[in-house]
Amino acid sequence: MSYYVGVDLGGTNLRCALFDEHRKMLARSQCSTKATEGSAAVIGRIVDGINGVIAETNVPRNEVLAICVGVPGPIIQEQGLVTSTPNMPGWENVELGKILIDRTGITAFIENDANCAGWGEYVAGAGIGCRHMVMVTLGTGIGGAIIIDGKLHLGRDGAAGELGHICIKDGGRLCGCGAHGCIEAYASANSVARRFVDLLDDGWHSPLGESRDRITSRDVFEAAEKLGDPVAMRIVEETGHLLGVMASSIAELLNPDRCIVAGGMIQAGEILFASMRHTCLNRNKHPARTMEIIPAALGADAGLVGAADHARLCLTTGAKFSYL
Amino acid sequence: MSYYVGVDLGGTNLRCALFDEHRKMLARSQCSTKATEGSAAVIGRIVDGINGVIAETNVPRNEVLAICVGVPGPIIQEQGLVTSTPNMPGWENVELGKILIDRTGITAFIENDANCAGWGEYVAGAGIGCRHMVMVTLGTGIGGAIIIDGKLHLGRDGAAGELGHICIKDGGRLCGCGAHGCIEAYASANSVARRFVDLLDDGWHSPLGESRDRITSRDVFEAAEKLGDPVAMRIVEETGHLLGVMASSIAELLNPDRCIVAGGMIQAGEILFASMRHTCLNRNKHPARTMEIIPAALGADAGLVGAADHARLCLTTGAKFSYL
Repeated sequence: MSYYVGVDLGGTNLRCALFDEHRKMLARSQCSTKATEGSAAVIGRIVDGINGVIAETNVPRNEVLAICVGVPGPIIQEQGLVTSTPNMPGWENVELGKILIDRTGITAFIENDANCAGWGEYVAGAGIGCRHMVMVTLGTGIGGAIIIDGKLHLGRDGAAGELGHICIKDGGRLCGCGAHGCIEAYASANSVARRFVDLLDDGWHSPLGESRDRITSRDVFEAAEKLGDPVAMRIVEETGHLLGVMASSIAELLNPDRCIVAGGMIQAGEILFASMRHTCLNRNKHPARTMEIIPAALGADAGLVGAADHARLCLTTGAKFSYL
Repeated sequence: MSYYVGVDLGGTNLRCALFDEHRKMLARSQCSTKATEGSAAVIGRIVDGINGVIAETNVPRNEVLAICVGVPGPIIQEQGLVTSTPNMPGWENVELGKILIDRTGITAFIENDANCAGWGEYVAGAGIGCRHMVMVTLGTGIGGAIIIDGKLHLGRDGAAGELGHICIKDGGRLCGCGAHGCIEAYASANSVARRFVDLLDDGWHSPLGESRDRITSRDVFEAAEKLGDPVAMRIVEETGHLLGVMASSIAELLNPDRCIVAGGMIQAGEILFASMRHTCLNRNKHPARTMEIIPAALGADAGLVGAADHARLCLTTGAKFSYL
């Protein structure tokens, strides 16, 4: 039997899991990333996490064939290099692949975290059976992953899948990236909360109005679902509509089998999905361009499953980065 | 030596060319499609065209290994089947592949015409050397083709690359497809002329005003380039801007090496391209997502080159449709 370790390096939590070659999870661990302590300290915790999940099982260390770390930022896969991470200090040009190989004695790869999560859903979650799949992850920002013909599409610089900056409204809301009208400026968790507060500022009334300075997207979705609050309903439906506009552009461009929606916001459930599907179907009437829009299935595990399977794949298909 | 025939079946003109295995064009022919006469008559002209270009050379007929026809409408490649053509009557479920094989004795394939043109630019034109390329064709409508990892990306139903219906402005101008805000509703040849007339209706003045009922996009581009007409300049620059918005969405999603712009409108030249590049670069500041935006190089030959090379490729890689 051969085994693989997936690591999900997040700004808040650092998670590791050991999988067998059939993608069965045998052990997992989680700790705080404590990103402010810098990359050396975090790498120490990654190594501890990897050693921990191996030690927890009876798996012989020499049967653990590869590791892959999902990194929240741009990387150069072939060099195992993290070029920077927007939300963690001290990660400029860190040779993470090489360091992990030196410290663990196991072949190590790195990949973008959104790509790992997309790959996880593709091989073991909501994307099973697809040939072409797009995943959109709704969080603080909006990211994504693209699978074409059963392979992760990375693009010229490994930067493909930045769904958050697809423009759905030229001249629209200002996005954090400096451009106007990106879907992220409307449908990220932060933007949903901000749009809700904008409506309150415009004179709309909601029971959430009293706590307006600390409203989160979760509050908005709960107010829509549980209270039927019309202001919140309006925001959630409009968010679904705008995500549907983005999805229809993706369908026209790529004609994929499925669009998987991931991230905390999908707990909003049917209000969001119904509105997203309605707009997308209405825009893409041609049957050849209809596309299933469904929620992700693996939750936070997608990144772990995907990273471990990516490690397996890199190893078996001729790795892009292998130092050993 | 082996030889291939490319056919470009257009609503107005029907063109054929014979190529050697190095993509050198040895003979070509062109005639009116006379589409109103129906598919049987048009297929007769396709067969005559194929026989004509072969007869014109000294190429032995048994060394002509395959034909490919670029079809202006949805097809089922594996069955050699034209399902319909929006602008030509009598093409519902025509087994064009099979008929051509029966009538010529040569293996025949069919592919969407925009994909043929994109493939032609990729192998022999402005896309040479790319790994990932997107082509956008500006004509009566807006179409396109997508090359991923050196292969045509067809999508689940062969319907990928419909760039014209990427939404750049939710709630914007009504498109012929019934949706609002598609780039085609702004930047197709018809839409450019219509937006110009809309400005005249809003009280803007232009020397073209006298012929307002028969203004074409060519008139608008010429008035911008040669007369410096401010109304025409405004329309051309805005068209470039909106195409730049679309291009930036494509860059974020696919991170391709290059975006090739084809079609009659590219004769507008630098006014259009400068505006398109400016917007795209301003939206995608991240160096990893910059993308070259350049004009197509092969003009109307792209479809012929691409169809013939597609025939070669289908034959050598294990054809999707081969009746013989």
